[in-house]
Order: sequence, then C-alpha cells, then structure tokens
Amino acid sequence: MHSHCYIALLHHPVLNKKGDIVTTAVTNMDIHDISRASRTYGLAGFYIVTPVRQQYDFVDRILNHWQKGFGLTYNPSRKKAFDIVSVKETLADTVDDITRQSGRPVRTIVTSAMARERTLSCNDMKELIAADDDAWLLIFGTGWGCTDEVIENADYILEPVKGPADYNHLSVRSAVSIVLDRLWGVR
Amino acid sequence: MHSHCYIALLHHPVLNKKGDIVTTAVTNMDIHDISRASRTYGLAGFYIVTPVRQQYDFVDRILNHWQKGFGLTYNPSRKKAFDIVSVKETLADTVDDITRQSGRPVRTIVTSAMARERTLSCNDMKELIAADDDAWLLIFGTGWGCTDEVIENADYILEPVKGPADYNHLSVRSAVSIVLDRLWGVR
Repeated sequence: MHSHCYIALLHHPVLNKKGDIVTTAVTNMDIHDISRASRTYGLAGFYIVTPVRQQYDFVDRILNHWQKGFGLTYNPSRKKAFDIVSVKETLADTVDDITRQSGRPVRTIVTSAMARERTLSCNDMKELIAADDDAWLLIFGTGWGCTDEVIENADYILEPVKGPADYNHLSVRSAVSIVLDRLWGVR
Repeated sequence: MHSHCYIALLHHPVLNKKGDIVTTAVTNMDIHDISRASRTYGLAGFYIVTPVRQQYDFVDRILNHWQKGFGLTYNPSRKKAFDIVSVKETLADTVDDITRQSGRPVRTIVTSAMARERTLSCNDMKELIAADDDAWLLIFGTGWGCTDEVIENADYILEPVKGPADYNHLSVRSAVSIVLDRLWGVR
C-alpha cells in the first residue's frame, strides 16, 4: 500500500485547446473512474481541485449519493472508492492538506502529454518513490493539460504515456489508470 | 502497429450484480475513452456489441457528430479515433467481420475481473500475439462482466488487472486502458 501517495485532478489552472488558461468543469465520470483506480492502486487520497464553489456542491451531491444514499445499498464498493475523495480550491491547499494528513513534506509529480526536457520514466519514478519517505502527489490536468507554470513548479515531470501509434489523445481517465498501473501494478 | 488486433466491448450477454444475464446500455463515455485508447495503442478496430437496435442509432448519432458535424471542426483528433469504431449485433458477427476485413482466422481473448484456472499473464499474451499472424480480438464485458459461456468459449483468458490494494473494481474504461498499455505500451 502507498499510504503516502496521493493524486490530484486539476480543473484550474489548465489549458484549453487554444492554449488559454481556463477552469474546466468537474465531471461525474472522472470522479467515479479515478476514485476506483486510486483505490485499486492503494493511494491514500484523490483530490479534485477546483476554485468554483458550485462544483463543490456538485461533487458533494455525487459523493453523498454513493456514500449515504441509494447508491450505498446498490453498490457498497463505490463508497469505499469515494471515501478517499476530497475537494480543494487550489493546488497549494491540496499540498497543505496532505502535509497535515501525512505529517510529511510533499513532493509533486506532474504529468504532461508532451515530451519535455526534464522528464522521468515511470520506472525511475517508481524507484524514487519506493526509496523515499516523503508524501508524493501525482498531478493530472484536465482540458488540454497543465499550464507551463504548474509544470515548471512541480518537483518532477513524468514522461507522457505512449503507445506504438502516431496518436496521443488519451482521456484523463485512461491516462490516470495507465500511470497508476505503470507505477504500482502487480503483474 | 497491430493491424491485426481488435477490441470488442460486449453489452450482451453480460452479468448484472446479481449474476443474471442482461443487456447493458451503451454509454457515450465508453465510446470516447475506448476509441481514443484503441487508437493510441494502434488497434485496427473497436467493436461495440449490442443486440439493441436503438443503441445502434445512439452510437451513430455520436459518431456522426464527431466525424461530420460540429465535433469535426472542434476536435479533429476525435474523428481519427472514431474512424475505427463499428457496431455489431453479436460477438459472432464481430468475429465474422474481422475475418472478412483481415482475411485471417480470429483468435479471441477474454478478460475477467476474477481469477480463473486457465489464465495467461499480459506478458505471455504479448509474446503469443507477436509470434502469430492470426487476427486477435480482445473482449471486454460491461456490467459485472462476461458470462461464463463467453469466457469458456474464448480461446484465451487474460489475467485480471491487479493493484497492490485489496480492492478490484476498475471501470471498464480503466481496465481497457491498462490492458492495452500492458500489451502494447512503449516505455
């Protein structure tokens, strides 16, 4: 178990397809798929990062349905996934929360769909994490990805996920699942 | 590229959580995420298998939007993913179509979230596929997974995807992405 590893799904600041800095909407499917994957790979927490107040209420309604409402009876395993979900306004708030919860300094890893200069492979990252007692936060950007500022401020940049084809447009749900499996999958 | 490899998402016959044999609904998100992942990992085709006529129309509407409508202008990369999507009524029709398209005999691989007797690891599967000129069809069940009959009739059963945690409830979108990466990811 990786009780000192966390994931954040960033809705601001991220890029749209024109390269403008925008705030994306939280989607129901992201919450479901990413919390289930985070649970499967043993993460301690999944943070949804959005500065928009109404989005908090939206996430709360969904979590409530599966944690207390009809959903709990219908599918109890979903509650177990949603128990590790929280919402924060900013990435800084997220890091603060992890510091408080884990009692450790937090090191951030950002994922980028584009190749960049200082990137690490998942294998190298895996070894770094295993050898270190700090808390680790994996950051994924929604929309067209994290801004340069978020990427430059991260402690580490993870290599883009690649297949053999000349096409590189995975959904964030797929990218998260694949990176978690590359870092912590049991084969 | 794996021009002889295909994926099918089965909506019937699959199990519901009580173990009854049911038909699930096609979801918009499955079409998007799985076509994008299939394209990224170089597959030749993604089949949506459902016997329900109305679901055909639903899939057609979505494909049309992104292949010809506003979606094509807004996000041309989505068209490229959707170009490999088709709908078939049954698994048998799917296998026939692949035989016709590829001109090769088709070998089927089923994925199961439960451990079973004759399962192969992704690594073993990868070697088998690489060493063989047949067409290969990876079958994923929606709902609570494929029926025993579908599993027993498949030529191969792939090991369940596992993380380090005692929780094993990935979405089918996550499971597909991870299996494609384990079989054909470039690291």
